[in-house]
Amino acid sequence: MRIRIAHLSVHDIRFPTSRTLDGSDAMNAAPDYSATYVVLHTDAPGMEGHGLTFTIGRGNEICVLAVQSLAPLVVGLSLDEITSDMGAFWRRFTTGDSQLRWLGPEKGVIHLASAAIVNAIWDLWAKSAGKPVWKLLADMTPEALVRCLDFSYVTDALTPEEAVALLHRQAPGKARREAQMREQGYPGYTTAAGWLGYPEDKMRQLARDAVAAGWTHFKQKVGAGLEEDMRRATILREEIGWDRTLMMDANQVWSVDQSVDAMRRLAAFDPWWIEEPTSPDDILGHAEIRRRIAPIGVATGEHCHNRVMFKQLFQAQALDFCQLDAARLGGLNEVLIVVLLAAKFGIPVCPHGGGVGLCEYVQNIALFDYIAVSGSLQNRVLEYVDHLHEHFIEPVVIRNGRYMPPQRPGYSIEMHADTLERYRFPHGPVWSGS
Amino acid sequence: MRIRIAHLSVHDIRFPTSRTLDGSDAMNAAPDYSATYVVLHTDAPGMEGHGLTFTIGRGNEICVLAVQSLAPLVVGLSLDEITSDMGAFWRRFTTGDSQLRWLGPEKGVIHLASAAIVNAIWDLWAKSAGKPVWKLLADMTPEALVRCLDFSYVTDALTPEEAVALLHRQAPGKARREAQMREQGYPGYTTAAGWLGYPEDKMRQLARDAVAAGWTHFKQKVGAGLEEDMRRATILREEIGWDRTLMMDANQVWSVDQSVDAMRRLAAFDPWWIEEPTSPDDILGHAEIRRRIAPIGVATGEHCHNRVMFKQLFQAQALDFCQLDAARLGGLNEVLIVVLLAAKFGIPVCPHGGGVGLCEYVQNIALFDYIAVSGSLQNRVLEYVDHLHEHFIEPVVIRNGRYMPPQRPGYSIEMHADTLERYRFPHGPVWSGS
Repeated sequence: MRIRIAHLSVHDIRFPTSRTLDGSDAMNAAPDYSATYVVLHTDAPGMEGHGLTFTIGRGNEICVLAVQSLAPLVVGLSLDEITSDMGAFWRRFTTGDSQLRWLGPEKGVIHLASAAIVNAIWDLWAKSAGKPVWKLLADMTPEALVRCLDFSYVTDALTPEEAVALLHRQAPGKARREAQMREQGYPGYTTAAGWLGYPEDKMRQLARDAVAAGWTHFKQKVGAGLEEDMRRATILREEIGWDRTLMMDANQVWSVDQSVDAMRRLAAFDPWWIEEPTSPDDILGHAEIRRRIAPIGVATGEHCHNRVMFKQLFQAQALDFCQLDAARLGGLNEVLIVVLLAAKFGIPVCPHGGGVGLCEYVQNIALFDYIAVSGSLQNRVLEYVDHLHEHFIEPVVIRNGRYMPPQRPGYSIEMHADTLERYRFPHGPVWSGS
Repeated sequence: MRIRIAHLSVHDIRFPTSRTLDGSDAMNAAPDYSATYVVLHTDAPGMEGHGLTFTIGRGNEICVLAVQSLAPLVVGLSLDEITSDMGAFWRRFTTGDSQLRWLGPEKGVIHLASAAIVNAIWDLWAKSAGKPVWKLLADMTPEALVRCLDFSYVTDALTPEEAVALLHRQAPGKARREAQMREQGYPGYTTAAGWLGYPEDKMRQLARDAVAAGWTHFKQKVGAGLEEDMRRATILREEIGWDRTLMMDANQVWSVDQSVDAMRRLAAFDPWWIEEPTSPDDILGHAEIRRRIAPIGVATGEHCHNRVMFKQLFQAQALDFCQLDAARLGGLNEVLIVVLLAAKFGIPVCPHGGGVGLCEYVQNIALFDYIAVSGSLQNRVLEYVDHLHEHFIEPVVIRNGRYMPPQRPGYSIEMHADTLERYRFPHGPVWSGS
């Protein structure tokens, strides 16, 4: 079946999460979780590709316009033309229009917009193959998978040949690990109780609920001032005890020295990692923080904008946990390069799952990583944030603190038509009040 | 006189440079030099602030929209409110709206748009002070200048106290150096003959003209394939001889190993520097290239998106020449931080001057650097590209290969009203054909 992309539509979707302080942290006091939501309409009946990039409100309109500016690069292509050499397509798409490339390159708004479109293509591909994305990937031969990737600027750290070898290494156990995932699911962690804006009683109740639901790993937002951070860590440790795992997330509010000072104090609460202690661009800064606060781990990645930055984070031994983002990177093709780089350097991938739709995306990535790339669950947990899943046709399924593999064909990211109508900004009924 | 920003207007200005291949290089085959052009209208009669960010065509509309999204953060403020603590203002402006910050942070479209507005504020400030920007800066006390800067994420490399000390160190010679600049100008270099798209006879004629005009430093675009690069280097060396200086610019087309291989071959033409050999994000890659091709220098910076990246380029000893961009960084405040970081690490600043308006901007930066920060001209040359200067009210003045200091109050960036009308995209007469 030949499928041609006939038309692209893009929707400015915003959820008024700032009204309840869901998602509040030290850097982002009042986000309205939002999506630049792309639909690839095709000439095949009933066949669409859906994808989104995540923003936190104002400025989503800029990503929407960037998608419109990029649309001519995919409209008119057939799915076959794209997937027959998807590495070459990805490179053409992200850098082939040099005028648009100038706006990044490969970073910021133009890269976020690229991610929405690239991920929509993967959704379309997986739907046409009748598989969820994780299964589409896991069933590919190493050679076929590596042909989807663009190795420009990373061959000094990972060549295509090395990537193929990494995938061959794990091929024998794939079927067993897939069966295990279908039965047990992929381990997750929760940020439910940890948002900065929540009062103490709400924190305690959410932490108790999460313990009762089987969660073993909990993340707390820090960076609100040391006294406040310690007060909230005390509450959480009281509720979750010391056998469960506590992580901390500073959302970039500290300098290098401030990070070290704060974590030396917060070490009393035995945190497993500190996430985003400082500027996401500061590779050498993260490396220095990591050296000085060991054995507390350093985690970062949700704002790491491309494979070149991750390559250096690995080369500089700057992090213990790779928190790549499914829509900050330039879509799944670039995510896969980072997953392979992480495997080469022995760094566990624990993708970013905050926001809207990111949990739905990244379950596919984590499952693929375990089944076909790393073959390990050690030091790997997948973020779970319990916001806004009801808007998806196949929301994530959590059992006993673990992600159960999605079943439906596609990238698990399709929203209900009703959501696209109601949360349309600024004229949908949720925003216009009508 | 109290001046309040009453209104902001933004113009999508594009020049059809792709029709003549002006500005063609290995990455950017056919740019249409463009500007997201901002005017801050005030309640003071005749007093406006002008600023622009530079793009190369398609996508300029995205920067225009980003300026509109940022406008509420400055409209309504008085100039005094901004300049009385401009470091704090800059931080508030670039990161205070966390929803817009998410789109970078501090990179890509949102940072380019920020630069246009921040630079327009400096233009307004300088006009209100009756001085060109370079003179406004040079006349500030070290303490006043440092109060304009935001040191977040760079204090591990440079503290405000160190910055003040650096400025005090050069204070004694300021008057002498200013007089020297007014008389002799600041040394420049030309890319006139070096664009990839030009045929041999045009290259030869432009090189001869440039030699006759007194230029001593010439830059060639490379990355078109080694045979072609060598053919063109041969032509240029034939025309300029071996006593004049030749630089090369690859515009990011190589991997780390390709950079080393190419420059070992091109070393036969005695290049002074190789500019942008690989990804602008690859700090460690530039450091490795630099180690392996010495004594050829490594230059980069026109795509370096913020002070955190420059900090690391300096820390990692990754470059010999700092080619900061006046509109890729978040406006003059961030430029000044980078100039001070460069002085701390002993790296010469040779700003990026391609595009439209960048020469006009950066002459102010280079003059300030010499007069007040570095006090040195050693290994410093300022890029000159002879395109589109006729559109500015005070175009750059070159004498004998040197930039003569601009005289008019402001940031030298104001375009003729007629240009803003004729080159308006897509409805101005140049584009609509009417």
